[in-house]
Amino acid sequence: MHLSKQPTADVSLDALYRIFTIPEAPESTLGKIERHLSENLAGFLSAHIVAKEKPLHEIEEDFADSAIPEQPSFVSEHTDELLNKLVAHSVHTASPRFIGHMTSALPYFLLPLAKLMVGLNQNLVKIETSKAFTPLERQVLGMMHHLVYGQEGEFYQHWMHSAEHSLGAFCSGGTVANITALWVARNKLFAATDGFAGVASEGLAAGLAHYGYKRACVLVSERGHYSLSKAADVLGIGRSNLVAVATDHNNRIRVDALREQCAKVAAEGGRVMAIVGIAGTTETGHIDPLADIAEVAAEVDAHFHVDAAWGGATLLSDTHRHLLQGIEQADSVTIDAHKQMYVPMGAGMVLFKDPSLVHAIEHHAEYVIRRGSKDLGSHTMEGSRPGMAMLVYSALHVMGRKGYQLLIDQSIDKANNFAGLISQQDDFEVITEPQLCLLTYRYVPAPIKAALENADDAQKRRVTPLLNQLTKHIQKSQRESGNSFVSRTKLTPMQYAKEPTTVFRTVLANPLTTMDMLAEILQEQREIANSAIHTQRALFAEARACGLLND
Amino acid sequence: MHLSKQPTADVSLDALYRIFTIPEAPESTLGKIERHLSENLAGFLSAHIVAKEKPLHEIEEDFADSAIPEQPSFVSEHTDELLNKLVAHSVHTASPRFIGHMTSALPYFLLPLAKLMVGLNQNLVKIETSKAFTPLERQVLGMMHHLVYGQEGEFYQHWMHSAEHSLGAFCSGGTVANITALWVARNKLFAATDGFAGVASEGLAAGLAHYGYKRACVLVSERGHYSLSKAADVLGIGRSNLVAVATDHNNRIRVDALREQCAKVAAEGGRVMAIVGIAGTTETGHIDPLADIAEVAAEVDAHFHVDAAWGGATLLSDTHRHLLQGIEQADSVTIDAHKQMYVPMGAGMVLFKDPSLVHAIEHHAEYVIRRGSKDLGSHTMEGSRPGMAMLVYSALHVMGRKGYQLLIDQSIDKANNFAGLISQQDDFEVITEPQLCLLTYRYVPAPIKAALENADDAQKRRVTPLLNQLTKHIQKSQRESGNSFVSRTKLTPMQYAKEPTTVFRTVLANPLTTMDMLAEILQEQREIANSAIHTQRALFAEARACGLLND
Repeated sequence: MHLSKQPTADVSLDALYRIFTIPEAPESTLGKIERHLSENLAGFLSAHIVAKEKPLHEIEEDFADSAIPEQPSFVSEHTDELLNKLVAHSVHTASPRFIGHMTSALPYFLLPLAKLMVGLNQNLVKIETSKAFTPLERQVLGMMHHLVYGQEGEFYQHWMHSAEHSLGAFCSGGTVANITALWVARNKLFAATDGFAGVASEGLAAGLAHYGYKRACVLVSERGHYSLSKAADVLGIGRSNLVAVATDHNNRIRVDALREQCAKVAAEGGRVMAIVGIAGTTETGHIDPLADIAEVAAEVDAHFHVDAAWGGATLLSDTHRHLLQGIEQADSVTIDAHKQMYVPMGAGMVLFKDPSLVHAIEHHAEYVIRRGSKDLGSHTMEGSRPGMAMLVYSALHVMGRKGYQLLIDQSIDKANNFAGLISQQDDFEVITEPQLCLLTYRYVPAPIKAALENADDAQKRRVTPLLNQLTKHIQKSQRESGNSFVSRTKLTPMQYAKEPTTVFRTVLANPLTTMDMLAEILQEQREIANSAIHTQRALFAEARACGLLND
Repeated sequence: MHLSKQPTADVSLDALYRIFTIPEAPESTLGKIERHLSENLAGFLSAHIVAKEKPLHEIEEDFADSAIPEQPSFVSEHTDELLNKLVAHSVHTASPRFIGHMTSALPYFLLPLAKLMVGLNQNLVKIETSKAFTPLERQVLGMMHHLVYGQEGEFYQHWMHSAEHSLGAFCSGGTVANITALWVARNKLFAATDGFAGVASEGLAAGLAHYGYKRACVLVSERGHYSLSKAADVLGIGRSNLVAVATDHNNRIRVDALREQCAKVAAEGGRVMAIVGIAGTTETGHIDPLADIAEVAAEVDAHFHVDAAWGGATLLSDTHRHLLQGIEQADSVTIDAHKQMYVPMGAGMVLFKDPSLVHAIEHHAEYVIRRGSKDLGSHTMEGSRPGMAMLVYSALHVMGRKGYQLLIDQSIDKANNFAGLISQQDDFEVITEPQLCLLTYRYVPAPIKAALENADDAQKRRVTPLLNQLTKHIQKSQRESGNSFVSRTKLTPMQYAKEPTTVFRTVLANPLTTMDMLAEILQEQREIANSAIHTQRALFAEARACGLLND
């Protein structure tokens, strides 16, 4: 299938109609790719994604033309070009050795279903362009609401399909979900009242003035996701009014520090608008003491939001759901199905305990989302949206809660086993123990690791920058060599005098990752470290200079 | 491929591994669906989507269970269920008789490419999970920037791949694009300066106080999209500070009224933060006089944003791009590729004239979007995002600018021909003439149509509610009968004394829609009107009572 490549006059409407009406032939390049994707996705990805890293500036040369091509291209030629320029240099996120981020392998059946979803091309903003997709999305939100809040059947019968209510909002991802939750919290706090039409209408400055608050604050632990700072900016709150609360040695918010900060905000004439609990920090996977936070939020009458973008899926496991105890007291909860629910990118959700909470952000128009309609667009930040809820629906049905439980349990077991394996090495150390399937660690040459056990804070501080340099070097080299990928971040571990410490970060969500692979990843890191002679020398010199090692 | 359906203990990890490693068999239900989608999408959609409307409350019964199923399901059984419950009652957006909204048929080659995109499952927030997709997205933004602003090649060589800059932001849709543009405008206006850390940090109330403005306003014509009101709410500006400016008889902003409103805002101590021009109103497809708006924006030193979510694609046609003259003076422009660029749902963009404008909304974190990285996430409102840019890239290459030109030209020609056809009927009238491929019209019984030509405003006002009732009835009945779909909205046409008037609204973007089909749609509407005896009687009685018709 192709358009004519003759001179201008011959780019015909007939040729264009064909691309809307006649499919690719099975033996065309695209037809073959499609079959390969269906029959052997892992094989396709392994065969086409080049392992060895090509420098970014070289890749950019392939994407340098700012002119839209005048003439059409043959689909087959274009597809070849995509394979060579794009697919070859994309990231093998499904690889069991890609354990650096939250993107895992996908169950096979979701691929043809995704194609079905694209082919149907529904628009969920309004029922006229989505019909059954609207009740389906409402059901998925109901199921997830039930997972979090566990209300009785009657509750869902009453609210799930109610036009004026909503158990949550589907969106592209956790960032939009978090912004939506805080938008609701802001509009609820600065609601309309005598002499004030509400913040939605009059704006935030008028709201603060009317209610007599100097500022509105959002409190979250210092391990909060950067999307919360973005939300504070977008919503007009200001990032400096996102108050970072100190954490304990497990990266969990300190409830005493939270109470102190609440008191401080109030004493300074501010108002705590929302407190955010984290159920699975992005960097270490730790979960805040949610029930305790709920108590504080109730004390200061603040909206309680839980960012469970990553950890929310843990609720599907009866073995581990107790870790999130207290989440059922949250006013709103963010969960990303494209993280540990194994759905493709683009499936975020925010759930609301109270189905009428969304009134705070309700919008209507004449041609869509009319008052009283069941159009989902009246309660979402986004407008036009695809039918991603279908993929969540299918994943929930095909895998079932028990299937998810197995996936989640094995991921946490694996993280614990990996932590055990790291601890057995005399040249690696775990920095943060896993609570979910995330953990951080680093490489430390054996003599230095042994010496650090009895080091004082000054000595720890002295060697940390060089250890950071080594960790960064190992992480980058390993990524570039293309066999495996762990990510890195900076933490301030208690055991290292809160000195900024670069660590490897792994997310063990991919069910196909084996302990053998993890052992190989450690071995590769060790080899890279051993070949980093210059950094090692500097590190040992510094260790001797500060008395950590003997001369 | 399926999970075991045996009792609990038998939901095994082995069965789960299989769904990650073994594809659906070609002869499985899902395998067959996939082939059907590939070989005959139109046939699949026509065969599976039930034409006759099933009442929503009945569909809801199929999506009533709030419990996540405990046990896994067979993929084949689940797929059958999806076909019967969901697909059968979804909307045939690709049908050439579905001319009520902006969702059209898709070119065939985009389906397998969409599947490839999902299979690759890249996350565009950071280069570590997207690699070549990052430069590709930057190139697509560059191409669209070039389409709008037409800078020299050197400009793009310099900025397109610059880490600290961005020619735009990809996002899920026009709403997020508009919010992003106004977020930039707000943060630019309330920038950091001596004694003020900027609105991003200190919040909007502090910004207004520091700069001494009573309020920040956004001005747009009364035909502006509802997403702008949502943006004003989200950003803390307040919806009442979104000032609606009067339009002329063609639904275009009145530049004199715009100047007046600007003066009024300033006189009252406010500040015009942004003026939004519309390039293709959602309801009627009209385009504001963009060059004139640019002049006013320059006079009052306001950010000039153009919402070209719908009409932006018109720039691809040399025949019609002059309609958007002045767009190249906009500071930012919204374009949705999932509208008239024929890409699946979820491909919005905002473009920035000045590549450093995004500094106003820049965000960084330790583990991703580090300072100096090329991670796209540092300049977008959303976080994790799929690689939709690939589909825009492919569409631009396979269709070429000239292919798009043909598609756009034929859609506008068709709208003009349809307007002509309507005008020839003695019982239909065009309410708004097409400028792009949108037009609105209504049914009016022949004697009343003739009489309305010499009616006074009072008489027009008297019959309008009953004509509205008739239009609404026709639109709903036609939708329910399932052969075709036009949408409806309410306008305040000059020729009808600005009385709220319900109209049919059509969007003629689908290249497969023929004039014969349009004639049939009119005929069907006429027949429904003729059978609405009760409303017709009431209408004629009212027409006589007010002297529009003789007794």
